Amino acid sequence: MPPADLLHHLSTEARERKPNLIRDVWKSVKRGSDIVSLANGDPHYTLYPLRRLQYEVPSLCPEDPVSAWRAAHGTATSQTFTSHIDEHCALSIRTALQYSTGAGSTEARESIMEINKYYHNPPNHVVTLALGNADALSKCFRLFGEPGDNFIADEYAFTALTSVAESQGIGWVPVRLDAGGMVPEELHRILLNWDDACGRRPHVIYLVPCGQNPTGSTLSIERRKRIYEIAQEFDLLIIEDDPYYFLQFGSCSPEVTDSSHNLLPSFLSMDEDGRIIRVDSFSKIIAPGMRLGWITSNPAFQPYIIAITDASSQHPHGFGQMFITELLAPTGWQLRGFDKWVHSLRAEYQRQRDFFVKVFHEEVEPSGLAEMQVPQAGMFVWVRVNMEKHSRYRDDLRISARSMEPRTNAKDLMAQLFDYCLDNGVAFMPGSVFALSSHPALLNMDSPVEDRVNYCRMTFSGTQETIQKGLSRFGGALRNFFNLDSLSADAETRE
Amino acid sequence: MPPADLLHHLSTEARERKPNLIRDVWKSVKRGSDIVSLANGDPHYTLYPLRRLQYEVPSLCPEDPVSAWRAAHGTATSQTFTSHIDEHCALSIRTALQYSTGAGSTEARESIMEINKYYHNPPNHVVTLALGNADALSKCFRLFGEPGDNFIADEYAFTALTSVAESQGIGWVPVRLDAGGMVPEELHRILLNWDDACGRRPHVIYLVPCGQNPTGSTLSIERRKRIYEIAQEFDLLIIEDDPYYFLQFGSCSPEVTDSSHNLLPSFLSMDEDGRIIRVDSFSKIIAPGMRLGWITSNPAFQPYIIAITDASSQHPHGFGQMFITELLAPTGWQLRGFDKWVHSLRAEYQRQRDFFVKVFHEEVEPSGLAEMQVPQAGMFVWVRVNMEKHSRYRDDLRISARSMEPRTNAKDLMAQLFDYCLDNGVAFMPGSVFALSSHPALLNMDSPVEDRVNYCRMTFSGTQETIQKGLSRFGGALRNFFNLDSLSADAETRE
Repeated sequence: MPPADLLHHLSTEARERKPNLIRDVWKSVKRGSDIVSLANGDPHYTLYPLRRLQYEVPSLCPEDPVSAWRAAHGTATSQTFTSHIDEHCALSIRTALQYSTGAGSTEARESIMEINKYYHNPPNHVVTLALGNADALSKCFRLFGEPGDNFIADEYAFTALTSVAESQGIGWVPVRLDAGGMVPEELHRILLNWDDACGRRPHVIYLVPCGQNPTGSTLSIERRKRIYEIAQEFDLLIIEDDPYYFLQFGSCSPEVTDSSHNLLPSFLSMDEDGRIIRVDSFSKIIAPGMRLGWITSNPAFQPYIIAITDASSQHPHGFGQMFITELLAPTGWQLRGFDKWVHSLRAEYQRQRDFFVKVFHEEVEPSGLAEMQVPQAGMFVWVRVNMEKHSRYRDDLRISARSMEPRTNAKDLMAQLFDYCLDNGVAFMPGSVFALSSHPALLNMDSPVEDRVNYCRMTFSGTQETIQKGLSRFGGALRNFFNLDSLSADAETRE
Repeated sequence: MPPADLLHHLSTEARERKPNLIRDVWKSVKRGSDIVSLANGDPHYTLYPLRRLQYEVPSLCPEDPVSAWRAAHGTATSQTFTSHIDEHCALSIRTALQYSTGAGSTEARESIMEINKYYHNPPNHVVTLALGNADALSKCFRLFGEPGDNFIADEYAFTALTSVAESQGIGWVPVRLDAGGMVPEELHRILLNWDDACGRRPHVIYLVPCGQNPTGSTLSIERRKRIYEIAQEFDLLIIEDDPYYFLQFGSCSPEVTDSSHNLLPSFLSMDEDGRIIRVDSFSKIIAPGMRLGWITSNPAFQPYIIAITDASSQHPHGFGQMFITELLAPTGWQLRGFDKWVHSLRAEYQRQRDFFVKVFHEEVEPSGLAEMQVPQAGMFVWVRVNMEKHSRYRDDLRISARSMEPRTNAKDLMAQLFDYCLDNGVAFMPGSVFALSSHPALLNMDSPVEDRVNYCRMTFSGTQETIQKGLSRFGGALRNFFNLDSLSADAETRE
């Protein structure tokens, strides 16, 4: 059983949500099996204008199915499965297209629990469907945070999501990361030295353990264990947002060879206390537009997740649930086939990454103006621009030693570089859009994040042509951006 | 152009939402067509494991397609259409299953705008997709209300939705309704006499104009016009939640014969000012589990609706958008076919309603213990239990004349009747679960809603067998519930 005292982490809104009387009545109705119901306005399934839904998906016979599918896109061998309204299938149209509860249909959840069990084998957890990670996370933020709260995140984070919490009045406390992700000692230091004058001490960590967006970093087993211990020490929840879990390249670590799936152990897999809320998505392994994912949590949190779902998006769409359920059913791929697909997919992304690394070495690195860390998971490369080599670089901007002003003009120069690259036909994401500003409680940090935004997030999820052309243009633009300034500086000197 | 000054109705959260820097950068990237992007982690469409999606739907050749589909469910004639990843179709898999914006895909929105144009022809409005009415309304509540605000609604409302606003700190100001829906004079009186000590005067009306849930009432053209005038007088927005719009029975009113679709004019159709936010759903006309609907608003509100969508559920699922787009495409039903289907569907529900009325007349009405109003739209019948005929009925419970205590024990007796009916194998929704409690600003109301909860919501959306059996059991249980008490009262008298 999960420790009941984790419920004190719930927000006031979550705890005080008005009950849905209509649903309560409906539940009391279901207690009797012989009851004729005149209660609910459910359209009868014979009125749904859909009898059959047929999906054509890749055959898994090839050794490397992703590669085969991609190579012969229109003609690669395929298999077909079907959802029916009347005939037997894994999740019928009549069930999937009726009203349901916020958790999603039993059939879809059972399929997904099989995935969970195989990859994480969590101690005692339940699955609630969601509409992908953004949906799941925005709900978690509302469940566990309220105005004035502070949550912990990596110093560089996917701000399209962290800004959602900010709109709800939740602040962020950034933790430094390095090539291996969040630094546990930094996390511990912040919690230990927390100043209550800045609000209550954070009770939630939000992190992306594999192929972190934007830095591409992956937490080692040791760091995972240490962060979990810190969460226990300070009674924190961890929101484990793991969309790139299945895109781990090769064997990330020699220690993982004891599991058949050869993937790093998730926080969920080690969650004895029930303090992990794990968020998974089909976006990166099936397709983003599916808008289907799942939340795995300790059972005590589930009623609250369902309540916020019933009161907002309602249960996930039937089409996506039917597709996934049939895909994982005995007549579809099954879990074994799903595992074969994701293994093949990660090999594909690994080839993409390796191609990116090769082109980066050829087109960018020789100039010495930028360098990259080879990511062990995900889709992103965090490219450091060696801006201190630029003739207009300054690191003496801070007037007072104890202020929080930036020391450098890295942010300005990066903005200029971004515009210059756009003018030269290549786009990336400037690091500054991912930077979480320092929190007042952390004024003892030696320098604000603005001094460290000399990074670009680049992706290798495009075609090889895109990678080749993009990095070639980036390398050229980078050299010109540094040289033009040197030239004009030389010219000024000569004048 | 909509009057810009309607933007003052937005909540602080909506106005102060942090910008999504990542999206902003992305937009600046799109300015150039020759730009190679290394920016976004979008999985390439050749990696989606789905080549073709085929839908088998009813043929529209029969005169009355719904009836034909229902009668020969497994064997009725059908037609098939397909979404492809590579081949030409109305909304391709490669587009629908990629990331999109909160508004939904252009193709799906254009299909839905055709529906809007034909049925409402709104003056100057735009369409934003949503995940059905609950999703759309929970977003609208957050967009236009903040803690401490009061919104207006019918005295009996779908509390599963109104409670969502309450969880956000928004209170409800109930307006009396009669068989014709919200009473405009009551609405006007409340606004005119509003006491600012109870918070700012409501700036939003939430209403269901057709087949209101739970009362089944439908607003006449006159009432619609009058309510719109009141909204103009007091500068209100109206959230027009209209899931039963297509289920209007016969010609609701002689005045509507000038439109080819023969349906009452929506608030949207008369919205010169841009103060209507209309919410539509496919739940009642296609299937609830689709979880797809749309919000129609003046263009000035759209960016805020999209922002809250991007920051919560994200764009609607691709499967539903593909299905609807192909359904309405030249290779599918088209708008003409859709119109034929919904006309046939309303005829089907009208037959169901008529059957319900017939059985009610036979099984319930002769006792004189309950009566019903014949609904002109929707799925619901609001059945009045004549509780004042019950031997234990009391109407003298109020101690002080000016208090807000109930005068009657209607609520208690209804709860007993509900349990008694369950024990006798029939369920309905007791009126009390739909009652909005009176707001402190309305203390001059003659009696609280608890005195008027002697109603049941019943539905005719089930099969004829359900209706026959349910009403027969209800009629019997009702007679026994009244008689048993009379008998025991007689027995007590004799003792």
